[in-house]
Amino acid sequence: MPVIILVRPQLGENIGTAARAMLNCGLTELRLVAPRDGWPSEKAMSASSGAVDVINNAKVFDCVADAVADLDYVCATTGRQFNMNKPIDNLEAGVERLSKYSRTGVLFGPERTGLELEDVIHANSLITIPLNPNFSSLNLAQAVLLLSYTCYRTAGLPEIDDSHRHDKTRPATQGELDGLVQHLVTELDNCEFFTSPQKRPSMIRNLYAAFGRMEPTEQDVMTFRGVIKALVAGRRNPPRSL
Amino acid sequence: MPVIILVRPQLGENIGTAARAMLNCGLTELRLVAPRDGWPSEKAMSASSGAVDVINNAKVFDCVADAVADLDYVCATTGRQFNMNKPIDNLEAGVERLSKYSRTGVLFGPERTGLELEDVIHANSLITIPLNPNFSSLNLAQAVLLLSYTCYRTAGLPEIDDSHRHDKTRPATQGELDGLVQHLVTELDNCEFFTSPQKRPSMIRNLYAAFGRMEPTEQDVMTFRGVIKALVAGRRNPPRSL
Repeated sequence: MPVIILVRPQLGENIGTAARAMLNCGLTELRLVAPRDGWPSEKAMSASSGAVDVINNAKVFDCVADAVADLDYVCATTGRQFNMNKPIDNLEAGVERLSKYSRTGVLFGPERTGLELEDVIHANSLITIPLNPNFSSLNLAQAVLLLSYTCYRTAGLPEIDDSHRHDKTRPATQGELDGLVQHLVTELDNCEFFTSPQKRPSMIRNLYAAFGRMEPTEQDVMTFRGVIKALVAGRRNPPRSL
Repeated sequence: MPVIILVRPQLGENIGTAARAMLNCGLTELRLVAPRDGWPSEKAMSASSGAVDVINNAKVFDCVADAVADLDYVCATTGRQFNMNKPIDNLEAGVERLSKYSRTGVLFGPERTGLELEDVIHANSLITIPLNPNFSSLNLAQAVLLLSYTCYRTAGLPEIDDSHRHDKTRPATQGELDGLVQHLVTELDNCEFFTSPQKRPSMIRNLYAAFGRMEPTEQDVMTFRGVIKALVAGRRNPPRSL
């Protein structure tokens, strides 16, 4: 079952009702990124209607990158269209995709605005819950409930055995993926690859999106870091023939 | 889409959030049987977050029999077991059953107790939402949401528009992908990356697999070729500081 990650949640009540909805569906791991009104929260505890363990065991992080660093696969829930090349699924397909990984998380944005571009960078794919196009704004806890219930229902179905895909390795964590892209960006800065400062952020987002879609294994990440090192070390020790 | 019938609801807030959840899923007909705090309700209107028409058009009845009199088929949602010979379905099967009739309704009980035997008599079948057996008590609006969403999904889905993913580009061809990997391999050979000749073929296969999973766009391929060129050009013109 995925970790539920509430990004900059505003109201303690909504954190509590989200925790209740999670536990209704057997989900127990809650993470909070920079909750607006601080933590712990009396209002969250009270609104959880008894989902005390979920609230007490919630972990708080300063930023999304830290909150997802140990996870294999992360989905971001959003109703917005981001101009980035990541898979976009409806709820059922997104949960199906999540169910293929062992340590997963789902990001939910703040009540008023939803997730921002900077948050979504840290997700492998997006989930858009298909709703009435004329009235599509879900309460935070309602969104958490629909996701949690769909996970709960999906977990009841037999899974396809595709264990041979990762025979001698495992999916890279988000932290390893982040380290790879940061390594590449550092070296690209060193050789002045980003000639346009305006375009640098969007090019970096595209690199994150591309490597995220790759769904690299731990071995893949090591290989690509070796590739970058080799190309750079070659530079530092230029062959005589050049 | 079914009529949602709240039987003796206690809190105006819950009526409002239930109305919001209904409209999120395209349901618009709300009926109330003997709401505890009277009707109309300022709290319901405020909690509906803009589902004004659902609230304003809600009809109030004195008893369940009157509230369902014009309907073809009625389901009662309950977590309790009643000793009566009526079909009991889970959420999906219950909604499937409902979808075979044209004028349908679904009964939801009061927050604290749920539906009583006298209410359930007026239903053709029962729906029990399968939840965590150790923590199965759903908030009223959450129960309405799960039912409404399942109806909305069963009625047929709008497709997610992800055309903006490839706004200014297109998926790379296999030839472009091959060109990228060949370019990388050539440069890796130049800097003697493949230290083991035995492993070289399988490492190249892994590079193909990784970039294949990435499903790069034409733009991505150009970017990565630029990345390789930049790292290599940096090598050929080493910065003075190194």
